[in-house]
Amino acid sequence: MKRMVSAVNLVVAIGLAVASGGALAQIAKNVAAKSPWGPADEIGTLNMMSDNSRLDVLRQVSGGKVYDLGVDLFVGMPTCCTPFGDPTFQIFLTHAPAQDPSKELLSYSGDGVSMYTHTGTHLDTLNHFGLRGQIWNQVSSKDALGVRGWTKSGADKYPPIVARGVLIDVAKAKGVQFLPTSYPITVADLQDALKKQGTTLHPGDVVLTRTGVMHHWPDGDKYRLADQPGLSLEAAAWLIDTQKAMVLGADNFGVESFPSKDPANFVPVHSFVQAERGISLLEVLWLEELSKDQVYEFLFIASPLKMRGATASPIRPIAIPIRRM
Amino acid sequence: MKRMVSAVNLVVAIGLAVASGGALAQIAKNVAAKSPWGPADEIGTLNMMSDNSRLDVLRQVSGGKVYDLGVDLFVGMPTCCTPFGDPTFQIFLTHAPAQDPSKELLSYSGDGVSMYTHTGTHLDTLNHFGLRGQIWNQVSSKDALGVRGWTKSGADKYPPIVARGVLIDVAKAKGVQFLPTSYPITVADLQDALKKQGTTLHPGDVVLTRTGVMHHWPDGDKYRLADQPGLSLEAAAWLIDTQKAMVLGADNFGVESFPSKDPANFVPVHSFVQAERGISLLEVLWLEELSKDQVYEFLFIASPLKMRGATASPIRPIAIPIRRM
Amino acid sequence: MKRMVSAVNLVVAIGLAVASGGALAQIAKNVAAKSPWGPADEIGTLNMMSDNSRLDVLRQVSGGKVYDLGVDLFVGMPTCCTPFGDPTFQIFLTHAPAQDPSKELLSYSGDGVSMYTHTGTHLDTLNHFGLRGQIWNQVSSKDALGVRGWTKSGADKYPPIVARGVLIDVAKAKGVQFLPTSYPITVADLQDALKKQGTTLHPGDVVLTRTGVMHHWPDGDKYRLADQPGLSLEAAAWLIDTQKAMVLGADNFGVESFPSKDPANFVPVHSFVQAERGISLLEVLWLEELSKDQVYEFLFIASPLKMRGATASPIRPIAIPIRRM
Amino acid sequence: MKRMVSAVNLVVAIGLAVASGGALAQIAKNVAAKSPWGPADEIGTLNMMSDNSRLDVLRQVSGGKVYDLGVDLFVGMPTCCTPFGDPTFQIFLTHAPAQDPSKELLSYSGDGVSMYTHTGTHLDTLNHFGLRGQIWNQVSSKDALGVRGWTKSGADKYPPIVARGVLIDVAKAKGVQFLPTSYPITVADLQDALKKQGTTLHPGDVVLTRTGVMHHWPDGDKYRLADQPGLSLEAAAWLIDTQKAMVLGADNFGVESFPSKDPANFVPVHSFVQAERGISLLEVLWLEELSKDQVYEFLFIASPLKMRGATASPIRPIAIPIRRM
Repeated sequence: MKRMVSAVNLVVAIGLAVASGGALAQIAKNVAAKSPWGPADEIGTLNMMSDNSRLDVLRQVSGGKVYDLGVDLFVGMPTCCTPFGDPTFQIFLTHAPAQDPSKELLSYSGDGVSMYTHTGTHLDTLNHFGLRGQIWNQVSSKDALGVRGWTKSGADKYPPIVARGVLIDVAKAKGVQFLPTSYPITVADLQDALKKQGTTLHPGDVVLTRTGVMHHWPDGDKYRLADQPGLSLEAAAWLIDTQKAMVLGADNFGVESFPSKDPANFVPVHSFVQAERGISLLEVLWLEELSKDQVYEFLFIASPLKMRGATASPIRPIAIPIRRM
Repeated sequence: MKRMVSAVNLVVAIGLAVASGGALAQIAKNVAAKSPWGPADEIGTLNMMSDNSRLDVLRQVSGGKVYDLGVDLFVGMPTCCTPFGDPTFQIFLTHAPAQDPSKELLSYSGDGVSMYTHTGTHLDTLNHFGLRGQIWNQVSSKDALGVRGWTKSGADKYPPIVARGVLIDVAKAKGVQFLPTSYPITVADLQDALKKQGTTLHPGDVVLTRTGVMHHWPDGDKYRLADQPGLSLEAAAWLIDTQKAMVLGADNFGVESFPSKDPANFVPVHSFVQAERGISLLEVLWLEELSKDQVYEFLFIASPLKMRGATASPIRPIAIPIRRM
Repeated sequence: MKRMVSAVNLVVAIGLAVASGGALAQIAKNVAAKSPWGPADEIGTLNMMSDNSRLDVLRQVSGGKVYDLGVDLFVGMPTCCTPFGDPTFQIFLTHAPAQDPSKELLSYSGDGVSMYTHTGTHLDTLNHFGLRGQIWNQVSSKDALGVRGWTKSGADKYPPIVARGVLIDVAKAKGVQFLPTSYPITVADLQDALKKQGTTLHPGDVVLTRTGVMHHWPDGDKYRLADQPGLSLEAAAWLIDTQKAMVLGADNFGVESFPSKDPANFVPVHSFVQAERGISLLEVLWLEELSKDQVYEFLFIASPLKMRGATASPIRPIAIPIRRM
Repeated sequence: MKRMVSAVNLVVAIGLAVASGGALAQIAKNVAAKSPWGPADEIGTLNMMSDNSRLDVLRQVSGGKVYDLGVDLFVGMPTCCTPFGDPTFQIFLTHAPAQDPSKELLSYSGDGVSMYTHTGTHLDTLNHFGLRGQIWNQVSSKDALGVRGWTKSGADKYPPIVARGVLIDVAKAKGVQFLPTSYPITVADLQDALKKQGTTLHPGDVVLTRTGVMHHWPDGDKYRLADQPGLSLEAAAWLIDTQKAMVLGADNFGVESFPSKDPANFVPVHSFVQAERGISLLEVLWLEELSKDQVYEFLFIASPLKMRGATASPIRPIAIPIRRM
């Protein structure tokens, strides 16, 4: 019931944008929105999940094969944001067995890690990008940002995601290994791929777009943020406003296409979906096996680490095929 | 099928120890064992999982409520191993909105983290503790340990865990909020709790023991490794060798009780289960809601981050109730 | 010349406080002060240094023995601020020779470190503690604080310190190994020790106070911030306002005595000297050899790392005896 | 006296290499050498320093101007070794004033740092590069390498360096802003520059070579390890064996020219000077002011942080002009 109300509210909230035809300037208002789920909401569309929605999809499971949608984390791995000053992935030993094992009974190994939270496959939370000092639900940095991060919309506030997932294999639909550099995926591209796949989107879906750029992984010179293909703003808005997607994800670094054409905003899709729609993003997803096996509908499970305040959490999502409906 | 063979092999491998009556000296041989799953095995008993085993439990799901078994990660949180020199949990901002938001359209936040891999709720991998220079499957540090970690049995080699989970609520069975300091849980304690709960263990279960010490969380002066109650070696061996548990977990720092009585080995249960039995451990689990709701059988899902070589991964497991069988 | 003017300005600036008898409330105004060295000043009293002042002391050098005033940095070392959430000292290998050296010609070792900037022997910069949002010279956090730190008064703005140093050995003057827990050193204590030593302070001196607590080093249970002896506010003000000290330092964690008696300010001496007087502090100094050899006057050299924006820099100061004057 | 003996021993130790004509194969023996200062030596030629040597140069000081030879450390700064997996420089706030300063009396800022130890201006210690598993003085990794680093020849074993320093301004002598990419500086280049400068080398000197590549600083695309000009092996050997230099330094990333011509050794000068000669290196030195002011002889002071086991320490050396002799 909550879900119905929410959907209605959302429609009201975004009515004009859609009705007006979806020109870029009209889609993005460039102001953080209030949440239809109330002033305490920190997770946006994840409120669409319910015991019923989860049970629905769990009951549709058709087999026990698990698809692993996460990539390895390793020293030297591709990173989105080293050029922006963010830390690289580091793992280092803090305990190791003696070089001469005859000297000890117990062989003890331990290790530390450090990383940008947006490393490898990860979830972007709603405090990652705001507009004019406010994140989703018009929470201002003045009120909710401390030296160790946000008190609102951090990864610690996120529920595990258990939902119907859908793959839109745009690269396959276009018959290419990977989309061209900087290619902006259009609404027509999505519609065409869905048609070819025979897939129907449902409200509350986790919608994963495949650009094919994992072809380059883990070559960080080629798998890079700067000019990756990805969703156009119109395509993102269509998935959210018309199709009622709950979460968007992709196999590239930033879901959207880069570089942005807006000199004032290097991530117009991020700021739109996060600050104006309350949509969380999944990035650097490994979708190659799903694509190969033509698995387009599945139980999607991802469980972000509850790092307080974090703007992202590394995750290792899984997909389990469901009966097609 | 593989599972059957494995179980048989395991029985052969550990026959004498059990038959002989289980005295401590006889349970632990203090030598790393060969894997019954062959020389390439790096994950031990997780080989018991199969498409069939996963589908079995997925089909038993009885509702859509998700229990979150992970704790928050935050600056100042309790840590097992700061006294051993391991790093504390740190999160820090690398991008933040301007203090005067009128100066920018986009409000960009990002953050880095650093931590010991055994922080918060986590999975211990089989390279964490070995014996005399060898980890599980007699892999020696000389052959498989590099400056950035092990090439064998790291978290990157682990599959997502999708299995039947069972809670053994020892604290509740004993009618206490939490077990006494350093209390070693016995086989009789486990049997008594299972009987009271009406729970039967199955081969391949993820078996979670509740000591009640989460009562102290997050007070790091009381929730501490040094003298936590936990499994005795006999109890661990009973769960593994007699009941065919696939994974052991608990709501304390180290599954086993501390301090060890063996001056030569401060973690005799760790080294036994990891190096001699190929059993992975789950630690710092949040079992309070399961206990409160008397949910003893569930679909258990945990998806460790594939950090190459890591001796552990932070995880946020979920539990979804299943029909009792 | 500049030095003279500055001293005059300082006297004017602080005249009333001293004249009025130095009651605590009157010494500290609890407002950040403007610098007598002008609106661009970021280093406070370090402006007292000049080519002449440096040459003066260099010419007084009486021998080639170098006293090392820095402590080792190591995993597990005492830290001031782990209870406040700050990171511990970590060093970890990033490159190491092969375990079998016959396999390689080159044996390559490398390592990373992470730490709180206030680790081991270090210099506190003037952006460490401010009052009501302003640091020294009335620079406000609103104008000068970014996500990676301050643009003003960071360690990168600091010159190397080359100056006359003086040890005031209060512990020795009192005939104790170390001062009692929380003992606040008084003006009379300083005067008495100087008299016993036969030492005269000069304007521009780096004044190092010895409490003797290094006796406990490196036992972090005993060498701890919580209740260390150190300077009282009156003693600090006397050294600065009457004696014209340029820098204050000590062999304890925080120069001043802990805990503070002011519930609203846990570091009243820090905030006074840094925000109201522009005085930089040196902490965790190793003064044991100087004390043993009764070296009370010396060439003092410390060269902070120019980490941009940093509130401190680890340093390893040296002292070289000079002729007594 | 010790210094004399040492010099004699060195001559004996390296006599043949020099006598034989200095061909590359003959200069580097590719085996770690025993120290002429005995089996306990961990610092090599730094043993040439004595109270007398220090007093000699201190007495020659001719003015109070201090030249700062260190560069800033900042997020995004050029790094030698990110391509090898080493961590970038990170600084992050752990405490910061409230955004609304009216809410607090005390404005508290603190910060953490993490970095590769070879970041910015730094000293390479003798455990950085060994040969066939042994570092200087034939110390083997088997005996002296633990999980947190070496127990021998780490930065913690280093004395502060107080010595005569000499600048050899090769770029200026050749009349160029900076030497060409990969240019190997020859013995003749050094002799020519010294002649033009009118500088004579003395035993025990800290010899700093200027290539001019700081012209590119801080553009990390141009100031990079891969193809920097620097010392040839012959030139390094001449400075050490013939001129009795105590320490070598330069304004580039690795003192020597890159890339190496030896496919089996990417740093033939490092391994030669560190493992075969016990010579410590100074890298990323800021020599621009010395060059501009034609200051070729100076008191050189650098005080490495005593990080236990570290293969390097960031330093901020200073130079104070001395009377030319």
